[in-house]
Amino acid sequence: MVMIIGAGFTSFGRKPDRTIVSLGVEVGRAAMCDANIGYADVGSGYFANALGAKLFGDMTIGQNVFAELGLSRIPVVNTENACTSGSTAFYLAQLAIRAGQCDVAMVIGAEKMCVPELGLIDSGRNELETQLGMVTPASFALRAQRHMYEFGTTREQIAAVTVKSRQHATLNPLAQFRSRETLEEVLASPPVADPLTRSQCCPIADGAAALLLASDDYATKLKRTVRLETAVLSSGSYANQADICRWETDDRTAAQAYEQSGIGPEDLDLVECHDAFTIAEIMHYEGLGLCAAGEGGPLAASGATSLGGRIPVNVSGGLLSRGHPVSATGIMQIAELVMQLRHEAGPRQVENCRIGLAHCMGGDRQGDTKSCTIVVLSRK
Amino acid sequence: MVMIIGAGFTSFGRKPDRTIVSLGVEVGRAAMCDANIGYADVGSGYFANALGAKLFGDMTIGQNVFAELGLSRIPVVNTENACTSGSTAFYLAQLAIRAGQCDVAMVIGAEKMCVPELGLIDSGRNELETQLGMVTPASFALRAQRHMYEFGTTREQIAAVTVKSRQHATLNPLAQFRSRETLEEVLASPPVADPLTRSQCCPIADGAAALLLASDDYATKLKRTVRLETAVLSSGSYANQADICRWETDDRTAAQAYEQSGIGPEDLDLVECHDAFTIAEIMHYEGLGLCAAGEGGPLAASGATSLGGRIPVNVSGGLLSRGHPVSATGIMQIAELVMQLRHEAGPRQVENCRIGLAHCMGGDRQGDTKSCTIVVLSRK
Repeated sequence: MVMIIGAGFTSFGRKPDRTIVSLGVEVGRAAMCDANIGYADVGSGYFANALGAKLFGDMTIGQNVFAELGLSRIPVVNTENACTSGSTAFYLAQLAIRAGQCDVAMVIGAEKMCVPELGLIDSGRNELETQLGMVTPASFALRAQRHMYEFGTTREQIAAVTVKSRQHATLNPLAQFRSRETLEEVLASPPVADPLTRSQCCPIADGAAALLLASDDYATKLKRTVRLETAVLSSGSYANQADICRWETDDRTAAQAYEQSGIGPEDLDLVECHDAFTIAEIMHYEGLGLCAAGEGGPLAASGATSLGGRIPVNVSGGLLSRGHPVSATGIMQIAELVMQLRHEAGPRQVENCRIGLAHCMGGDRQGDTKSCTIVVLSRK
Repeated sequence: MVMIIGAGFTSFGRKPDRTIVSLGVEVGRAAMCDANIGYADVGSGYFANALGAKLFGDMTIGQNVFAELGLSRIPVVNTENACTSGSTAFYLAQLAIRAGQCDVAMVIGAEKMCVPELGLIDSGRNELETQLGMVTPASFALRAQRHMYEFGTTREQIAAVTVKSRQHATLNPLAQFRSRETLEEVLASPPVADPLTRSQCCPIADGAAALLLASDDYATKLKRTVRLETAVLSSGSYANQADICRWETDDRTAAQAYEQSGIGPEDLDLVECHDAFTIAEIMHYEGLGLCAAGEGGPLAASGATSLGGRIPVNVSGGLLSRGHPVSATGIMQIAELVMQLRHEAGPRQVENCRIGLAHCMGGDRQGDTKSCTIVVLSRK
């Protein structure tokens, strides 16, 4: 049994004067303060960064971060797994505890994206499809078009995801976009790839997040209450090009997570999912079993996934409003669950929150999935 | 308990017509053939590559490799840890089995270095010391100079490491440099950083290596005999600049490995260590406890670390003769132990080989250590 005993995070946004290392150190310190434990208790470090090597030639960054935290001798692993980089580091940390390697493990994800070196995010610039125009927003737009064609999903239903996201983000001081947007404003924002307008695409960001995981024995002494029910990492099949209205990885990873934890979608009080684009959130509703296939559009428009609704989704503002510093995102989603399960989420607190699910996916082939993670946490 | 049930590898050298993915797939298939198990039994994949993102912008390569192997749905982790990238992936795989996540895990490390993009390997080109000339060979030469000053180690003793390495490599068809070199030839090869001549620096290479790990229960059914005694990963302290004749990480990681396994240096039949430069092997003799501090030079010259000697070191030819495709190296070292412990190493077989140790270190600050791994295997 693994418990989550501490979380730390920065706001997400442009941070031109910060390095990857300084962001990582900040959230590591914050997580230690939150957990209120001694540095000597931390037995291993898992560090996620997706873009540092490509953009800046930086490698083995984790050792620099953990050394600055005073944790210079522990096992340190650097991992990269596209948008699931952070949640993959989390997955490894819980393996280390379950394997008995250590009692306490720290996970840190830090990313710098708001730099000229980034250029266009193309998800595979050497692929023929990319060169023909199939950049990431286009691939999600194609899924949206197909969803509209197949299920009668409307532009308004899709755009409703952003309206909800901005509304939630007004309650989250860490988010990038904290002003309400009306349905009309979302639909009238500049088109990116029809039907997706600019307000329906998540922004890049600099930022970092950290978590401290501990064995049950260790956490019980501290009277901590957030328990890991399951953490699943899976890879994509590349086999669903004929059916672009669903991600086979969502279905499969969710089935595995629900089976391992004995928790079903009807038991969830809160979901943080990978809303890189509005249509993605709608498809994830279906993949996670929050509604039947094809019913994601009406669910989005119904208000059921808003704070106070049947199953609140992305009350943090999600990727769409909080921003998406790649390797920090998967950890921040879990950190949001931790705050909610501790009933410390302030104005965006989900009432009686006892079980939460964080979902993340990463890919590089035009929106096809390469990896998917699902983490389920509960309040003991 | 974890067992090693299969190994696969390429030769190391220039492979201009090969991609990272094709190298990875080749060794993955070879490991599967060696283990003679079905693909459906492989429960997770750990992939190491150090330079692909920096040189080519390639990321999440592991998913491409495992998907081509037909393993498109398992959890796949991409890791990078400088020269210990491969052994770190191995470390993670054994954690996964010990945690009960899967019965069989595959580890693959693949690297392409023989490309114009590589440029000078500088270990931190933005550091002031690098810009002042402290490139990697210079930092090892400085350690050699200090070792000579402090312990009376001679140029001939240091160069003897290459003589032995080449001699061993004549017995290894996978090695890059398979011709004998005399002590006079090693000393007369072009100077790189005094006292290190060119023959005393390991060559870059393209190449890949893979291992299959399994739980005890699974391996016992197959009647496999190679057992993992311990795998230790640790990080560097950056604190030993005052004493450049030893790596504090070697001492500490070895102590931990010996304590965890109940095996001491006197029990070892074979060592593969990280001989990136001749002086490094001598310092590792001391760090691993094969001799007392300061006695590495005489040990190298004595013949005790040659095939047939008291404790053979790098009978594969090591990094110096086999070559050093960064992320493949740590896995290849372990694969060499596997062949030796199975008594299938042909003309370079160590007689009655029952216990072997693989040591790897990675760094980026002028030869200072960022990570160190030690893996001890035994024949059941």
